[in-house]
Amino acid sequence: MTTELRGKPVARQLLDRASKTVEDLKKIDCFPTLAIVRAGSDQASVSYENAAIKTMERVGITVESVVFEETVNAEAFLQALRGLNQNKNVHGILVMQPLPGTLSRNDVARCVDPSKDIDGLTPENLGLVVENEKNALVPSTPKAVMALLDHYAIELEGKDVCVIGSSPVVGKPLTLMLLNAEATVSNLHIKTKDTKRYTQEADIVISATGVVELVTADDIKDGAVVIDVGFGYKDGKPVGDVKYDEVAAKASAVTPVPGGVGSITTAVLAEQVTQAAWRQCSE
Amino acid sequence: MTTELRGKPVARQLLDRASKTVEDLKKIDCFPTLAIVRAGSDQASVSYENAAIKTMERVGITVESVVFEETVNAEAFLQALRGLNQNKNVHGILVMQPLPGTLSRNDVARCVDPSKDIDGLTPENLGLVVENEKNALVPSTPKAVMALLDHYAIELEGKDVCVIGSSPVVGKPLTLMLLNAEATVSNLHIKTKDTKRYTQEADIVISATGVVELVTADDIKDGAVVIDVGFGYKDGKPVGDVKYDEVAAKASAVTPVPGGVGSITTAVLAEQVTQAAWRQCSE
Repeated sequence: MTTELRGKPVARQLLDRASKTVEDLKKIDCFPTLAIVRAGSDQASVSYENAAIKTMERVGITVESVVFEETVNAEAFLQALRGLNQNKNVHGILVMQPLPGTLSRNDVARCVDPSKDIDGLTPENLGLVVENEKNALVPSTPKAVMALLDHYAIELEGKDVCVIGSSPVVGKPLTLMLLNAEATVSNLHIKTKDTKRYTQEADIVISATGVVELVTADDIKDGAVVIDVGFGYKDGKPVGDVKYDEVAAKASAVTPVPGGVGSITTAVLAEQVTQAAWRQCSE
Repeated sequence: MTTELRGKPVARQLLDRASKTVEDLKKIDCFPTLAIVRAGSDQASVSYENAAIKTMERVGITVESVVFEETVNAEAFLQALRGLNQNKNVHGILVMQPLPGTLSRNDVARCVDPSKDIDGLTPENLGLVVENEKNALVPSTPKAVMALLDHYAIELEGKDVCVIGSSPVVGKPLTLMLLNAEATVSNLHIKTKDTKRYTQEADIVISATGVVELVTADDIKDGAVVIDVGFGYKDGKPVGDVKYDEVAAKASAVTPVPGGVGSITTAVLAEQVTQAAWRQCSE
C-alpha cells in the first residue's frame, strides 16, 4: 500500500508552531512583519505572493508589500531593500523571483540583511547550510522537503538518496541538508550520463527539475520513497516531475503534485519569519 | 600506464601566476600581506604555518604572525581578528586550526571579514560556492583538488565522481565545486551502507577521510582517476587514504601522498591572498 505524502498536515504542524511563536512575540510587544518585495507582475510570482500573504495572515504575521514596475532602476530597488534592512519594524524580507532583467540576482542577494533573509537567498545563509548550522534561515523549498521527510518519519541516516536537479535554490542546498542528516547523496542533473543507474538503487528519489513526468516507474526500485519538487502543466493540468500513477504503484510513498512539497513552502516562510523576529526582538 | 598526478607542477603554475599579480600590485603601491593567526602550538598546525610562510615569501607576500597561548581568552582572540579586519595593510587572514577548546569555530568564522578570508572559513564565502561564484575566496583544499584536476586536463562534465568524506572544510565544498563543474557527484561518508557500489563504477574517486589506506584496488574500476586528500601515518611514514601501489596498478591516474594535493594548498592560499589584495587595492 503506497502512502501519499500530502503536504497539508506538514504545513499545519509548522503553522501551529508559528502561531504559538507569534503569540509569544506579541506578549513582548514584537509584531512579526514580513516585507514582500516584487518588481513586475509575473503571474506565477503574484499568485505565490498571494498564497504567502494568506499564510502569514493565518498565523498573525503582518505583511507589507513593496511593488515596483518591471522597468525599475536597480539602484532604486536596492535602496528599498536597504531601507527594509534598517527598518526595525520589519523582521523578514522576501524578494519575489524571477527578477526582471534590470536586476542582478547576485546584487539583490548581497543586499538583503542575512538576519531578515527568510528564504535563504544570501550567500551567508547558504553557507550556514554547508556548516550544518541548525538555526540558519534557509531556502524554503529544500527546507519544506526536509520538513515533509521528518513529518512522515522517513529515516535518512545511511540511506541512499538521489537528488535530481542542482540549482542553487533547491538541488544544491537540498543535497547539503540531506548530507547534514547523514544520508548518502547523489546529485544528478542534465549532464548525468545514466540517471537510472543511480535512481534504480536509491531508497529515496527527489526530483526538482521542472521537467514534466521525468521520473517513471522504471526509474525507481520497489518500495522507494519518491519526492516530487517539480511543477509544470500537462494538458492544462498542473503536474510534477513524477509520472504519478505508475510511480505510486511501485513506490512505498510518494508526494502528489499539487498538494505535496509545494503546499509546505509558505508555511516554512512563516516559520522563518517568526524565527527571525524572535532573534531580532529578544536581542 | 598510470599517470602520477604530482602536486608540484600545479603549485608552480599557481605560484607563477601569484608572483606576477604581486608584481602588478606593487606597481600600484599595494604590498600584499597575510596575517596568520594561531592559538597554541599544535605541531601539525605549526609545520603547515611554516610551509605557508615559505610559500608566501616565494611570491613576495609579506606575512605577519599573530600568536596566542592555547589558553587565550575568546574575546581577546576575536578582538585581534577585528583589528586585522580594520587594518588596511592586511589583505588576507588565515586562522590556523585546530582551535583550542576556549574558541568556537563558528564565532571565529563569523568574525573574519569575508573579503580577507583567504581560506573560505566564513559562511558568506562558503555560500558563494553554492552560488557558483567564480571569484569567491574558497577553502584551499577543495580548490587545490580542482586546480589539480584542471592542470591535468581531467574532464569533469558528465563524469561520475565519488567524494568520500563530507566535512564542511573539504567534502561538502568539494562536492559543490564538482557539481559546479557539471560532474555527477555522490558524497559518501561513514554512514554510507555500501561505498563500493558507488566507487566501483565511478570515473573519479576522491577520498578525504584521514582513514589510512581506506581505498583499495577492489574499490575502483579499471582506469579510474583516484585523488587522495587524506593524510596519516603508517609504520612512521606519511601515507594517505589510498593504498597507493595496488590502486596505481589499476587506476589511469592517481595522486601520491605526500606530493599530491597537499603540496598545492599553500599555493592556493597565496593565489587567494593576491586575489583579495587586488580587490582591496583597486577599490
